[in-house]
Amino acid sequence: MTTTVDAGAATARTSLADYLSSVLRRLPPLPPLDLDLTQAYGHVLAQDVPAPHQAPSFDYAAIDGYAVSADDLLGVARMTRLSVIGDLTAASWRPVRLTPGTCFSVAAGAPLPGGADTVVPADWTDQGMAAVEIHRPPKRGHGVRRAGDEIGAGTVLARAGVVVTPALLAVFAATGIAHVVVRPSPRVVVAATGDELVDLGRVSQPGQVVDVSSHALAAAASEAGAYVYRLGICDDDPEGLRGLLEDQSNRADLIITTGGTGVGPGDMVRRVLARRDGVRAGSVAFTELAVYPCSMLGFGTVGVEEVPIICLPGDPGAAMIGFEMLVRPAVQLLSGAQPVFRPSVRGHLLTAVQSPLGMREFRPAQVSERRGGGYTVQPLAGGPYTLSGLAASNALMVLGERIGSAPAGSTVDVMLLDRRR
Amino acid sequence: MTTTVDAGAATARTSLADYLSSVLRRLPPLPPLDLDLTQAYGHVLAQDVPAPHQAPSFDYAAIDGYAVSADDLLGVARMTRLSVIGDLTAASWRPVRLTPGTCFSVAAGAPLPGGADTVVPADWTDQGMAAVEIHRPPKRGHGVRRAGDEIGAGTVLARAGVVVTPALLAVFAATGIAHVVVRPSPRVVVAATGDELVDLGRVSQPGQVVDVSSHALAAAASEAGAYVYRLGICDDDPEGLRGLLEDQSNRADLIITTGGTGVGPGDMVRRVLARRDGVRAGSVAFTELAVYPCSMLGFGTVGVEEVPIICLPGDPGAAMIGFEMLVRPAVQLLSGAQPVFRPSVRGHLLTAVQSPLGMREFRPAQVSERRGGGYTVQPLAGGPYTLSGLAASNALMVLGERIGSAPAGSTVDVMLLDRRR
Repeated sequence: MTTTVDAGAATARTSLADYLSSVLRRLPPLPPLDLDLTQAYGHVLAQDVPAPHQAPSFDYAAIDGYAVSADDLLGVARMTRLSVIGDLTAASWRPVRLTPGTCFSVAAGAPLPGGADTVVPADWTDQGMAAVEIHRPPKRGHGVRRAGDEIGAGTVLARAGVVVTPALLAVFAATGIAHVVVRPSPRVVVAATGDELVDLGRVSQPGQVVDVSSHALAAAASEAGAYVYRLGICDDDPEGLRGLLEDQSNRADLIITTGGTGVGPGDMVRRVLARRDGVRAGSVAFTELAVYPCSMLGFGTVGVEEVPIICLPGDPGAAMIGFEMLVRPAVQLLSGAQPVFRPSVRGHLLTAVQSPLGMREFRPAQVSERRGGGYTVQPLAGGPYTLSGLAASNALMVLGERIGSAPAGSTVDVMLLDRRR
Repeated sequence: MTTTVDAGAATARTSLADYLSSVLRRLPPLPPLDLDLTQAYGHVLAQDVPAPHQAPSFDYAAIDGYAVSADDLLGVARMTRLSVIGDLTAASWRPVRLTPGTCFSVAAGAPLPGGADTVVPADWTDQGMAAVEIHRPPKRGHGVRRAGDEIGAGTVLARAGVVVTPALLAVFAATGIAHVVVRPSPRVVVAATGDELVDLGRVSQPGQVVDVSSHALAAAASEAGAYVYRLGICDDDPEGLRGLLEDQSNRADLIITTGGTGVGPGDMVRRVLARRDGVRAGSVAFTELAVYPCSMLGFGTVGVEEVPIICLPGDPGAAMIGFEMLVRPAVQLLSGAQPVFRPSVRGHLLTAVQSPLGMREFRPAQVSERRGGGYTVQPLAGGPYTLSGLAASNALMVLGERIGSAPAGSTVDVMLLDRRR
């Protein structure tokens, strides 16, 4: 299991800001791929997307009614009578044209006949078939959508780094786009290590600890947009572990391990991965961080393909905080997204908290909108109880290195955790 | 295509609030199912979940160090020397016990030996192997996690209606849960209708309009948590359309159509589904709503299985607003989630807007945090241009039936649209 470094120990630790700035730049976005638009939802654009055509691409009736020339209604005080010379629907394709004193009955979506510039709503007429009486003349241009009104050809519809949402997908389709160049979703492999681990559905006892972290991390990686392969539990056999991780480097864009990051004899992940090896490329640096409750992280590469690997502690609460600090931004970077960090706000702390000096603490919290604006922040169980706190949280309170305590009523930073639905 | 009812026409329309209250109660949650915890992420709990066991389930060392009895450190000013009688890791399972003057070297996660009540951090010692010198005595209980400290057996871990998040999944696993009773994700079938429709990658022209809506709705339904089957484009053949929709009732929990909701001769969805039929059960009511830009919705059932069906307009912008109003809450209800509506806030409007009187307008907007608290709301293209506005939006401004205009600086309601990442 993990080394949860005691918060009181004052060894030289790396600040989270320094650590992330050195590590995250080693994660370039994955190579782009051209996807059919039907597959593109949820992916991140690798290029700016200009509109190849304008939208709408032709003039059409926006409402059900009668397509007229406004000139035929000019000077009319109350009522006009026009001959109805045809019916048009969205499926009509033959070019047709008004003559003076005539109109077409049109359904919404029907192409506008030549010479027409206005659609009179059906409700404003007697809804006649061969001829129609118009009770109320609309303004010129009423009920019509003109080619190019909404989107001009060449308009940049979205920039590189933007996620393809349902509405963006719709705008792409409406301007004639059928393919977009996006980053693939990263393939993330999750492995739990530790001879003590047993699978779900048991109760932990000495020597048999339920593997909680790999399941939680797999779900968190899915939530972050990755394709996830959970390897399950790996024994602490050095050659076996090394081989397993190098095998995965063929199919993974990122490997996550949980457990074995400590300095004890049983901390096999660290022993296997930290040493450099002339034959097999890649190595992992383990860094003691000024972060509570996740003070040890490994980062490096595995295999000749130099697949990035992140080694998290085994303790589930610490592993989840490590995921938030490093894995989630890493998944975002690989997938090409910007920004990579969650949004933060400042809020009014409801209950005093203590926090280890010299450590940046991430503590689960419940953030609520406050009447009249702003937020309130209710701290939840942190430290060794982070896991149960996280389950009830919608945010992480961030208590900086210099904060030893924060009184009720003070203003604190909180990172908002969005929820799936 | 759709009947986009002219906003100025003053026919009797149903208010959105009345409509939703009559329609949504006809959508009970889907029958629950028992899922393996590894499959449960993202689903909604159908029952309250009590903890079957306490967590932690046994006393263990939270940190690397030496497990001692605090009594052996009593009255010691600076330094104590203890014999190290064994090493324990998380994989150790044999019951062991301290005798006075002795200790165990422990890795984080190791079960606490009998008689021990404190773990001295390795950093506070000389890190000896056979014997250890302790430079600084910790308080009794330091470095130890006690059985039941975090979660008591029987504690309700989460209530019915809550989504299984990664952290909640972790808490379940940690208390010995391997299965949970959840609602399945609804299976949603999306069909586009209209003889004019052509598939992606063309440019719309008279009589050949690209099917934008079914793709956007399929993505939106995925985002809402549904399994989505896009049927593609259905021709306006009455028997074919009816048969197709009834076939789908075997595999769908909800059917969505787009197009054909108007009153014209080409509006086949309405003609086929609105009429009652003695042999084939089910019928759909089409309702004119006081909503802009989606003023017509159909709701009812199809087939002998009475599968719910929602008929949206064909115009993509109106269809997406209809999705937000009715389909998304319907998917949430079927999946057992509460609340079913998106969160709303009030914000400071940056630019004046006009809105049709008597209609509740949903207008795309960009909401930003304001320095010093609260939000600003920048309206984006609405009305017939809602689609392009939606693509740039992160919220929908809600302009009620009585609002004809809202000046810059006024306070408006906005519904927050969360983004996938």
